[in-house]
Amino acid sequence: MINHQRDRARFGEADPYPVQLLKRVDRPTTLIYEDEVQQVDERESGFNRAGRGDFGPRLKKEYFRFVAKHPLSGALLQMGFNLRKLVDGEVAPEEAPHPDDPGWMAAHIKETAYFLRADLVGICVLPPYAVYSYGAWHGGEKIELNHKYAIAILIDQDTRTEAGTNGHDWISNSMSFMAYTSSGFIACVLADYIRRLGYPARAHHALNYQVVVPPILLWAGLGEMCRIGDIVLNPFLGPRFKAAVVTTDLPLAVDSPIDFGLQDFCAKCAKCARECPAGAISHGDKIIHNGYEKWPNNVEKCTGMRVGNKNGAGCGTCIKSCPWSKPHTLFHRTVNWTMRHVPPARRLGIWGDDLLRYERPDPARKWWLDLELVDGHLRIPEGFRREGE
Amino acid sequence: MINHQRDRARFGEADPYPVQLLKRVDRPTTLIYEDEVQQVDERESGFNRAGRGDFGPRLKKEYFRFVAKHPLSGALLQMGFNLRKLVDGEVAPEEAPHPDDPGWMAAHIKETAYFLRADLVGICVLPPYAVYSYGAWHGGEKIELNHKYAIAILIDQDTRTEAGTNGHDWISNSMSFMAYTSSGFIACVLADYIRRLGYPARAHHALNYQVVVPPILLWAGLGEMCRIGDIVLNPFLGPRFKAAVVTTDLPLAVDSPIDFGLQDFCAKCAKCARECPAGAISHGDKIIHNGYEKWPNNVEKCTGMRVGNKNGAGCGTCIKSCPWSKPHTLFHRTVNWTMRHVPPARRLGIWGDDLLRYERPDPARKWWLDLELVDGHLRIPEGFRREGE
Repeated sequence: MINHQRDRARFGEADPYPVQLLKRVDRPTTLIYEDEVQQVDERESGFNRAGRGDFGPRLKKEYFRFVAKHPLSGALLQMGFNLRKLVDGEVAPEEAPHPDDPGWMAAHIKETAYFLRADLVGICVLPPYAVYSYGAWHGGEKIELNHKYAIAILIDQDTRTEAGTNGHDWISNSMSFMAYTSSGFIACVLADYIRRLGYPARAHHALNYQVVVPPILLWAGLGEMCRIGDIVLNPFLGPRFKAAVVTTDLPLAVDSPIDFGLQDFCAKCAKCARECPAGAISHGDKIIHNGYEKWPNNVEKCTGMRVGNKNGAGCGTCIKSCPWSKPHTLFHRTVNWTMRHVPPARRLGIWGDDLLRYERPDPARKWWLDLELVDGHLRIPEGFRREGE
Repeated sequence: MINHQRDRARFGEADPYPVQLLKRVDRPTTLIYEDEVQQVDERESGFNRAGRGDFGPRLKKEYFRFVAKHPLSGALLQMGFNLRKLVDGEVAPEEAPHPDDPGWMAAHIKETAYFLRADLVGICVLPPYAVYSYGAWHGGEKIELNHKYAIAILIDQDTRTEAGTNGHDWISNSMSFMAYTSSGFIACVLADYIRRLGYPARAHHALNYQVVVPPILLWAGLGEMCRIGDIVLNPFLGPRFKAAVVTTDLPLAVDSPIDFGLQDFCAKCAKCARECPAGAISHGDKIIHNGYEKWPNNVEKCTGMRVGNKNGAGCGTCIKSCPWSKPHTLFHRTVNWTMRHVPPARRLGIWGDDLLRYERPDPARKWWLDLELVDGHLRIPEGFRREGE
């Protein structure tokens, strides 16, 4: 098990965020009845159901264009496709000499990921229920993945862009796919590095996952489940990140789950539910679903908004409006510390977040072009005027 | 021409470093006799000459293993090879609607590159002499490149790793190739985005350059030529970066060259020349070489050290020991400002840098493994003991 007080000092300051200050716990704050959790079939995800027509003919059609309809998310998606075949490869025939110390090796692997420009990294034992039963790609392949450890790599979706977006305009998919491809790029290099050390390793990224990401993030101490639904919220990035994963048999010390009071916070706050343009997030209490005690979400409504958004590309309004999704400035770090450590202050924090209207976009920060690919031609979407024209 | 005071305010704070405070000048501080500069044949670069045997049989052999002999630089090199074929592609059949304002579009393109996680970005008119006559890859192809503009993307080689390295140990090539592949990744996505907007655009990165980088960096206001030789030094990153470039015909306002006093500084400081393990850097004055007034460097000695290093992988000792290569902390930013603005303080700064022995590695910051691939097996190089063993 990683000792975060000690290991932070191992190579200087390892993590760019003060993860050593987080309260570590034995099990995730979300109840998981591990013997009840069924493996998930990726073909049954909201996106894939949209693509095969479960949500009607319009979403079936939109599924094949909703990312590429904006030129920036289109370019990022194309890079993601290019990374798809780089997830695995030959393993060196023998193990390289290295310290026989899983703690040292875990710190080394984390430092390697930070060197490759990851924003946050965590390690856990790969739970069997975090492996998909069947994948959605390659015609629905049965997944066989027996690696022991999972290394999760988080990439921030960009605070400065977040300040300018309303969460469901034309930059939303680009924010997702920038973080998907950047984390995927790092995961592919890291997995290749581990294979060169003589251990099997596979990268998992948005266009080639064999693993379900949320339970890995919980066990790797990178966040708690939040009201948004099947989403893990990180104390420093909020829900404003995407993750890639490397699974491997390289022996590594693992992180512990964290508890920063989010179950209490989300019980008191429902800003995401209020702001969701699709009404897909619950205002109510947690339920038990597939062995997890979690807030329910309406997958069809959420997918419909993200795939079918007529006035933008994708949707991340829950991310934009979440009080935890803030830049890492002194002011916000102070509020963040208070929300984590002073439960009675939480209602005040939620009230203040509303008062300051952080869910609203700052038009001065909008740097992107509103464009939509229609019948092979880029057009200014209906109802938009362009600055400078 | 970009007005850095005004354009910084265009979308909030565009650049992560205070480039708007730099003194802008009409021409680079390095004299360039533009009608005398001959196009460079990439096949005549030091690395390619080593590879074809100009520097003897040992370097010819080492050329084919010097990056891949360490598993981390090997994985990064492999990713670089994967990016090689992603530099160009189909251009959308018509121009997308966008503001008819090259200043707005330049700010937009820079913001896009920052969104894609670039560290610094600059734009210039592509000088014809910055295009290679022949490339080294694909059997020595004749280069035809008539794009009007060049967008340069810098990636930091990592300050935290720099603190731990001596500049010529087993992490040196990884630092270079992390920055080469990360900047190449961004350039490939950015070029694809511009082609989707209906303008030709090509990415240029370490394994597929058609352009010579230094003159582009000078004209794009990203640095001045320094004593190290054919190297541009950035005021905020020092020489601790690698660059990728996107060339395009998309109309863009361009940056102006900068003058932060480096010609005077390097004339007074010769720490790189003193620290260079190959004796490849001159202690003397500038010369005229191929139309540039620059400090000379011994390409054969420099290449021999980088390719042939027996006690490490690559070499960047000049980068490590340069007084400008510091983390962006308050202390170093203050010293940096003083070096730029107070010429009489420069000798004191150089003296202080020596006194504090910044050229020395901090062993506590060493996070990587010393490994060398010999005859297909990773081995601990001679003379190394591993922590924890």
